[in-house]
Amino acid sequence: MKVVITGGTGMLGRRLALRILAKPELSGPDGKPEALEKLVLFDAFEPVEPPPDDPRVEVVTGDICDPATVDALIDGATDTVFHFAAVVSGGAEADFDLGYAVNLDGGHNVLEASRRTGRCPKIVFTSSLAVYGGERSIDDATALTPQTSYGTQKAIGELMVNDYTRKGFVDGRTLRLPTIVVRPGKPNKAASGFASSILREPLQGDEIENPVSRDTRMLILSPKRAVQAFIDVHNAEGDVLGPNRAVMMNGISPSIGEMLDALRAFAGDGVADRVRDVPDAMVQSIVDAWPWYADGARARALGMEPDGSVAEIIESFVDDELGGEFVS
Amino acid sequence: MKVVITGGTGMLGRRLALRILAKPELSGPDGKPEALEKLVLFDAFEPVEPPPDDPRVEVVTGDICDPATVDALIDGATDTVFHFAAVVSGGAEADFDLGYAVNLDGGHNVLEASRRTGRCPKIVFTSSLAVYGGERSIDDATALTPQTSYGTQKAIGELMVNDYTRKGFVDGRTLRLPTIVVRPGKPNKAASGFASSILREPLQGDEIENPVSRDTRMLILSPKRAVQAFIDVHNAEGDVLGPNRAVMMNGISPSIGEMLDALRAFAGDGVADRVRDVPDAMVQSIVDAWPWYADGARARALGMEPDGSVAEIIESFVDDELGGEFVS
Repeated sequence: MKVVITGGTGMLGRRLALRILAKPELSGPDGKPEALEKLVLFDAFEPVEPPPDDPRVEVVTGDICDPATVDALIDGATDTVFHFAAVVSGGAEADFDLGYAVNLDGGHNVLEASRRTGRCPKIVFTSSLAVYGGERSIDDATALTPQTSYGTQKAIGELMVNDYTRKGFVDGRTLRLPTIVVRPGKPNKAASGFASSILREPLQGDEIENPVSRDTRMLILSPKRAVQAFIDVHNAEGDVLGPNRAVMMNGISPSIGEMLDALRAFAGDGVADRVRDVPDAMVQSIVDAWPWYADGARARALGMEPDGSVAEIIESFVDDELGGEFVS
Repeated sequence: MKVVITGGTGMLGRRLALRILAKPELSGPDGKPEALEKLVLFDAFEPVEPPPDDPRVEVVTGDICDPATVDALIDGATDTVFHFAAVVSGGAEADFDLGYAVNLDGGHNVLEASRRTGRCPKIVFTSSLAVYGGERSIDDATALTPQTSYGTQKAIGELMVNDYTRKGFVDGRTLRLPTIVVRPGKPNKAASGFASSILREPLQGDEIENPVSRDTRMLILSPKRAVQAFIDVHNAEGDVLGPNRAVMMNGISPSIGEMLDALRAFAGDGVADRVRDVPDAMVQSIVDAWPWYADGARARALGMEPDGSVAEIIESFVDDELGGEFVS
């Protein structure tokens, strides 16, 4: 099978690529895992981390906003597209036009190019808890009432994926992700980025500012569980999903205080004391609109599991990304 | 004040135009009714009915999909835009590309042109019960889960109106309308069109086919009440609306059988017997996804009232559109 990942050299794109290159896990039309023949990693940026060293991999750099580029990317041989490419929440809030161009028009381009193949490829669209607004607790029936441009653009993408799927143009699925923690690498412009930074930076010896109150809760999911969830939602039977192709992924709901307590318990006072509270009203106001608790029956029914604890999330970050060692 | 109505020579656009030309009813920045100085009626089509004969009226024919056309239409003097222009439900289902071009890109063009004026004009966006899908009863918290391309495009428009308003680019409001009954004039491509035709055509001496079962219920609102609701939602205080700018308008919920009984009671057997049941599975399946009952507390709080009965709706159609006479 041929798979395209947009945003393919980014954090989740790259990890999904490594995972599906390692062994056949994505199912084909017969529902069984199919061998991966070609994997195209498309991104706006030159790779920061080296792309996977595998003859099946092709890295393509280009602009998702350009329809011709996307048409050339998603050709008649494409079986599956994972669409990660996006301007993140803080970026879409800061640059309104760029957010709509990449997140709305870019997504539309992916759907149109997929439709033009005439073979109804699978499209796995990445959405976010930013589609909600104001509710403390969410479930599968909660209305999408986004309070940011990013959330608006993701909600629009979900609607279009449903409509293109209903028309038989694509076999679309949307994975609505909690905040990913711990994101490896450097901070990005996502308003949620601090939730990773307050764990990641201290473990690597760096001081870091926490912009929100310690009783703020975050719905979080590790990169490892997120990659698994993308494979699960790709492989789900279409009939099980029904007309609403979006699956809200569950997460765990620690407070910032509980996250920092878990860091202290895991790595000691020297590490935990590298976090300094510097309230940022802008970040707090964005995060306050996000839900604390998710009860996603659809995700559970598909066997999609969140992490067990913050401790488990920290441990897997140290093992997978820091070679098992941290700066005490 | 200067007002632009897109779809301004269409059924609702024209009736709203006549109403606001008759006396000052649209409120200005101080909340008081302001004199209308200029009214631009924009439409893709040459007017079928003669445009209002008033020196303040300008009729402009053009393509809402062309950004330059819309930029020229909504200039720096514009205070309010009523955005009616749309490809209706049956049309958007039949021509997927045209539906997205007019209903998505056209709406986006209106928001962008309004934003570029730099003076945050009022935008009143027209939405529809087609944004729902599958629920029998809806209220203000019901999630938007459209089952048609038209409903998808309207739900997307609502999201964008909220986002452009939140950013301070426009003062947006969305009126989510029930099915308009009785639409005057000729049948259009809306899947809901039969609900008007089965009353309108027999009253004018013509036979008509009813495509759905008689126990199908429809949420309906008269053109007169719809025009009033547009004025009400335009004049509502922004603070009362809050971040979700959409107001779901209530209607009454007769079955098709009850509508035809009311026709029989009003006009006699000769008229009612002009309706013949000819089931159309395509129309039935579209209509089956629409809600039967609406409980909109927001609309009620704004004083927006539905009609009293089917009899009242029929009577006002005969009075307003047929000069008080029907073909018995």
